[in-house]
Amino acid sequence: MGKVAVVGIGHTKFGKRSDVTIRELAFEAIKEALEDSGLTPSDVGFAVVANYGGFSEDMCPAPYILEYAGLNPKGAMRVEAACASGSAAVHAAYWSVRSGLTDIALAIGVEKMFQVDTPTAVELLGRAGDVLWEFIPFGTTFPGYYALIATDHMNKYGTTEEQLAMVAVKNHKYGAMNPLAQLHREITVEEAINSRVIAWPLKLYDCCLISDGAAAVMLASEDKAKKITDTPVWIRGLGSATDTGYLGRRKDISTLQATVLASKQAYKMTGIEPKDVDVAEVHDCFTIAEIIAYEDLGFCKKGEGGKLIEEGQTYIGGKIPVNVDGGLKSKGHPIGASGVAMTAEIVKQLRGEAGKRQVPKAEVGLVHNVGAAGQFCYVTIYGREG
Amino acid sequence: MGKVAVVGIGHTKFGKRSDVTIRELAFEAIKEALEDSGLTPSDVGFAVVANYGGFSEDMCPAPYILEYAGLNPKGAMRVEAACASGSAAVHAAYWSVRSGLTDIALAIGVEKMFQVDTPTAVELLGRAGDVLWEFIPFGTTFPGYYALIATDHMNKYGTTEEQLAMVAVKNHKYGAMNPLAQLHREITVEEAINSRVIAWPLKLYDCCLISDGAAAVMLASEDKAKKITDTPVWIRGLGSATDTGYLGRRKDISTLQATVLASKQAYKMTGIEPKDVDVAEVHDCFTIAEIIAYEDLGFCKKGEGGKLIEEGQTYIGGKIPVNVDGGLKSKGHPIGASGVAMTAEIVKQLRGEAGKRQVPKAEVGLVHNVGAAGQFCYVTIYGREG
Repeated sequence: MGKVAVVGIGHTKFGKRSDVTIRELAFEAIKEALEDSGLTPSDVGFAVVANYGGFSEDMCPAPYILEYAGLNPKGAMRVEAACASGSAAVHAAYWSVRSGLTDIALAIGVEKMFQVDTPTAVELLGRAGDVLWEFIPFGTTFPGYYALIATDHMNKYGTTEEQLAMVAVKNHKYGAMNPLAQLHREITVEEAINSRVIAWPLKLYDCCLISDGAAAVMLASEDKAKKITDTPVWIRGLGSATDTGYLGRRKDISTLQATVLASKQAYKMTGIEPKDVDVAEVHDCFTIAEIIAYEDLGFCKKGEGGKLIEEGQTYIGGKIPVNVDGGLKSKGHPIGASGVAMTAEIVKQLRGEAGKRQVPKAEVGLVHNVGAAGQFCYVTIYGREG
Repeated sequence: MGKVAVVGIGHTKFGKRSDVTIRELAFEAIKEALEDSGLTPSDVGFAVVANYGGFSEDMCPAPYILEYAGLNPKGAMRVEAACASGSAAVHAAYWSVRSGLTDIALAIGVEKMFQVDTPTAVELLGRAGDVLWEFIPFGTTFPGYYALIATDHMNKYGTTEEQLAMVAVKNHKYGAMNPLAQLHREITVEEAINSRVIAWPLKLYDCCLISDGAAAVMLASEDKAKKITDTPVWIRGLGSATDTGYLGRRKDISTLQATVLASKQAYKMTGIEPKDVDVAEVHDCFTIAEIIAYEDLGFCKKGEGGKLIEEGQTYIGGKIPVNVDGGLKSKGHPIGASGVAMTAEIVKQLRGEAGKRQVPKAEVGLVHNVGAAGQFCYVTIYGREG
């Protein structure tokens, strides 16, 4: 069974993009991924489009995106796994290549969330929660779910509001250094702590952004990859898992079981251990989510995620640099695009092309992408060596 | 690279199901597929859920369906390719097994369309068309698109309203024999011709149904399949293609280019020719679509689809029996479920379990599933032999 590599990446600036349609926005990322790989649309065997949807009149974006990008008549499908849709697309594209059905597959992620106002966006996202038992009867939306998770974590492990704020400070610092990020503004722990409460203990700066954006990654089989580029980035391990839709049925909400299981699968497939990971993109939809990800991915012991950020270990130079592109928190979170954009960032890091944000000698990178409140998790491990 | 087989199928009755939620409806099909294969949820490696969505408050059905069916914590994603979503799920599940990442994958299709009234359902489906250039500016919905296609085909090839009606008569005949079908009523050519005009030349009986329903198919790797069942049905060939979103950009709308390309890929992969196919499920969202499918799949020459049904060649006993389960026309068309349900029917036929509707000595079967007005096409070829 042959290996699969990323051979091209594209990543638009994240932010408010009222100047483009969704197909034009996707095209910007696709064009860049094609140019980066030196390939043409005719080389692509299949395209997987990640898009959560609901923000526009459009119910079925894939063929329109393909048409605009000159990718017709190549086969395509849309995939959705809530906020992990982008990683689902990367996994599906990987399968299509590794199964031998095509040599080249393109994973595209795109979302235009600013087409609706903020309350509507929060409602549409809330509908990824349990509509039957939580969203409709209680009106719970994602700040609420993660506030429950945060209070449980604070209660069990002594995690503090300051530690949550420190995650935001780090991610704003790196976002300010990333030209593609939505926000370019460093903040202090005081500013974060004093920002307005959204759902206690989460304040404004604990929450990720509403964003427009797109990203694309080109995958190739081993033979093709070696011909296409001198710097292939290999997909070494993949894992995915789900958890109950209804949070009330989980034994413990201070951990995301789907992350634990998905990362175990991915580590097992590679033989890589958490300590071997040089740089990670983790799903920081809320600051507490990043702290829990440190633990569930094995970067520290359970309950010590707060301490890890407090010690600065997830900055460049620390034990495990995390979200040094700004994360969902500062780079932005255009739902369908995020997992693909995380992949593009890890590829940049492993190629040594991340400029001021470069993690020195990054050989192994990890992408962790969560859907809803842990209902989905996808973990993917990348390496400079196959 | 190992082969992949269908080792279990589930298929609910199609119709109006106001007694169940979407997760309960999906469960009925999943339970049947598990029982049919003798497997348990813990055997399943990954689940792909096909669902078009938009008919309910739910934006993200997959984890809720998995939870209800006891499939957590298995990995999952939702796929969407308009009306071809079901086949997209089968293809993605196939990739996941063939890539070696899992031995067993489950493709689930489900839709509950009766949650909205008919005009709303038609509008939601219309949003799979080109929202930017056709649906919003002209209000075109699918009866309109297929009426354009039908008039072009009638003009070029002399296809008649009677021939369209004959497709409906055949599919109603077989639907009446299928306990899972939504309609159990034979009709005559006269009734079909005299039914009310929806979008000329398409009348009521030229249009498929709005339906609730679910289907599931269990796929297994070669080694596993041989242990699980004595009657594996092998996936021998797969193809998929897209076409322009905007119909006005196509050179010829009397053919669906995506069908031509997808079927060529699938035939090439198998070495099977159209004449070798013993039984086919084709995408009869409108009667003209079935006639065009005969031609584009190579069951007759271009322009002779009308003659093929007129001669009765697509009945059991004819050259190529088509939609002998009633098709979308009479069995029903719960969008996400349809491609999975077509697969379940072909598996029944190749196992010789189709009862009164059995095509004698069926060895090779074909599933043809179109999304939107040919924006997507998926073709899958199945065989009793691998």
